[in-house]
Amino acid sequence: MICQKMLELGKNKSQMRELFEYGLAQAAVVGKENVFDFSIGNPSVPPPDAVGDAFVEVLNEPPLKTHGYTPAVGCDEARDAVAKHLSKLLGRKFSRRNIYITCGAAAAVMASLKGLCIDHETEFIVFAPYFPEYRCYVESAGAILKVVPADTDDFQINFDALEKAISPHTQGVIVNTPNNPTGAVYKKDVLMRLGDLLRAKSKEYGHTIYIISDEPYRELVYDNIEVAFVPDYYEDTIVCYSYSKTLSLPGDRIGYMCVPDTMHDFDEVCWATAGAARAMGYVCAPAIMQKVIARCADVPANLAVYAHNRKLLYEGLTNMGYDCVYPDGAFYLFVRAPWGTAKEFCACAKKLNVLIVPGDDFGCPTHFRTSYCVNPDTIERALPLFEQLIANAPDGSDKV
Amino acid sequence: MICQKMLELGKNKSQMRELFEYGLAQAAVVGKENVFDFSIGNPSVPPPDAVGDAFVEVLNEPPLKTHGYTPAVGCDEARDAVAKHLSKLLGRKFSRRNIYITCGAAAAVMASLKGLCIDHETEFIVFAPYFPEYRCYVESAGAILKVVPADTDDFQINFDALEKAISPHTQGVIVNTPNNPTGAVYKKDVLMRLGDLLRAKSKEYGHTIYIISDEPYRELVYDNIEVAFVPDYYEDTIVCYSYSKTLSLPGDRIGYMCVPDTMHDFDEVCWATAGAARAMGYVCAPAIMQKVIARCADVPANLAVYAHNRKLLYEGLTNMGYDCVYPDGAFYLFVRAPWGTAKEFCACAKKLNVLIVPGDDFGCPTHFRTSYCVNPDTIERALPLFEQLIANAPDGSDKV
Repeated sequence: MICQKMLELGKNKSQMRELFEYGLAQAAVVGKENVFDFSIGNPSVPPPDAVGDAFVEVLNEPPLKTHGYTPAVGCDEARDAVAKHLSKLLGRKFSRRNIYITCGAAAAVMASLKGLCIDHETEFIVFAPYFPEYRCYVESAGAILKVVPADTDDFQINFDALEKAISPHTQGVIVNTPNNPTGAVYKKDVLMRLGDLLRAKSKEYGHTIYIISDEPYRELVYDNIEVAFVPDYYEDTIVCYSYSKTLSLPGDRIGYMCVPDTMHDFDEVCWATAGAARAMGYVCAPAIMQKVIARCADVPANLAVYAHNRKLLYEGLTNMGYDCVYPDGAFYLFVRAPWGTAKEFCACAKKLNVLIVPGDDFGCPTHFRTSYCVNPDTIERALPLFEQLIANAPDGSDKV
Repeated sequence: MICQKMLELGKNKSQMRELFEYGLAQAAVVGKENVFDFSIGNPSVPPPDAVGDAFVEVLNEPPLKTHGYTPAVGCDEARDAVAKHLSKLLGRKFSRRNIYITCGAAAAVMASLKGLCIDHETEFIVFAPYFPEYRCYVESAGAILKVVPADTDDFQINFDALEKAISPHTQGVIVNTPNNPTGAVYKKDVLMRLGDLLRAKSKEYGHTIYIISDEPYRELVYDNIEVAFVPDYYEDTIVCYSYSKTLSLPGDRIGYMCVPDTMHDFDEVCWATAGAARAMGYVCAPAIMQKVIARCADVPANLAVYAHNRKLLYEGLTNMGYDCVYPDGAFYLFVRAPWGTAKEFCACAKKLNVLIVPGDDFGCPTHFRTSYCVNPDTIERALPLFEQLIANAPDGSDKV
């Protein structure tokens, strides 16, 4: 007798993790250079030098301070640094009270969901394609996941479908821009329309519908694209951020929740999300990482390699006839399978040791995800294999 | 509309946190040297030198490896180091497969509870006095907390009460030895009797009753007392460990779950606890801390100051007439309030800036907890205040 739901979650790893671990095993068999692993979003550029300097500085501080418990909400210096950075970046006023330092964005999203979930009828909406762990998080919070189908033309929001998905039980909508897996950045008019719709629906149902804005890729954008700040378009937004991608610290688990002053039930939302973090055993975010972030909140991401890779992979694939929306941010291409289902296509790719993720778990089984946070050489050497794959639809497969 | 339960947890901090934060504020008013803060278990000795050396070594490794995602279960080097340490320490064979590296013991306990909780009737048993966050964790996992009253004579187990508390819905028993707040270490015959009882009850009800053994204080014991390893007495035990106290790294959040090979449903328990960690957004334990632990799993705790403090405070208080069981481990004294309720007594102490925690939230309102992980000077200067407190029962209070 054990929790079957948890057992399934532990036994069946995410497709991405599964592929990543397959790649490691396969590298031992055929050689690392012969495995083309586009499976996971593990940054391929080292952290900026400022991060290393910050570690040295922090480790020279009195150790009881460096490694001691911090308040659950985070130490003052980290909260102040984040608030100052956001104020400067966004031209809005943030202070310590808006910032809760978390163990990465996953913890922030979980605390938001669990803090907002009222009962087993509570619903949260996601837009396909969506990060597959959202399903796991929403259900773990005790709520129901509702999926709005993808608009594969530009991966902005399918508003007709969204309107149908909203119900009196809707407590929140998870927004992820820049998006994993498409790299799409929501346009301002899209966010404006989203805000208007949620405001109207909140009024209609007599309770606030929240946005949970999951933004680990906020700074990973190209061609000077501006990423709109979701709370500027909808006041009842909880921002969830992680330094995993921008500062290349994914394993170290550090990020934050930002609850802006515009939140109608500011105190209640702060309390409930803090209570949820407490109830899951998140005593505080890793103290040493808090102190590093206090020194690095302003440090820009190193985008050069990703920008190069984006162009290389996008042009390489589209020149061969692959169909793909040019991504404005993150480090993924979301590509339509040129024949068969994405699952079938990815299975064939796997035989060539090209590891790409079918879109099924993202709620979009026509596409596959390639992560281009890899060595450019990996892309260059994989392109002939992609060429081979598109040319060789197995008999009976529908060519798109 | 928000989750009221989470709101309450976020709004009403634990008594200990509340007192600790009061102490910080009060220090600003009356001077740090005039606040005698015995409220929380924040280690007062710095981490051993080996920890500092390990940080330097780890930060000199390739940064993508140091800071990258690890498998959810932890990186091989940390799991291997822990397994090797436990094998040597306990004369049993452990390997990587028994170890899941976690974000501290709180995350390990939560993953265990959530992995084992079957439905809303599931019950977990704790022995008073118990760490108050257990209530929060058990209820957050969706289960019911049942409290076995304290045996205040020696703070071992009250078996008559335990037997009455076990029901067909009992999924687990949380054991915490060395104990917070009493410092008691369970004797071997007590654990043997506990094992026998749980084996009989598991058989009677046709399902395994698990022990969740929360052991952050395992190495914090005095006078060469031996701490029995709970799985030696009961095979279906999940061990939850933290380096917070022994290596003075409480803020950095690093520990592990150990599922021994003797566990009857080994695979299922591993999967379910892993699934629960995943479902709460614990992507992996902080990577840099995993690498530090890989180098420090064998490093002994520095007990000298705590041993000195234990004697100083225990003798000081008992010589004045306070009633207290001499603790074998941890860094707490659990003292009977000499008059009134512990709450009343602690409120009077607070007026003298002596911050001690009433036992109410520990399920034992006759006692208060003092943490002696403080500067010895703090104890010496506080003793006259304790003398003043015991002598001055307010009119109408019952003297014990």
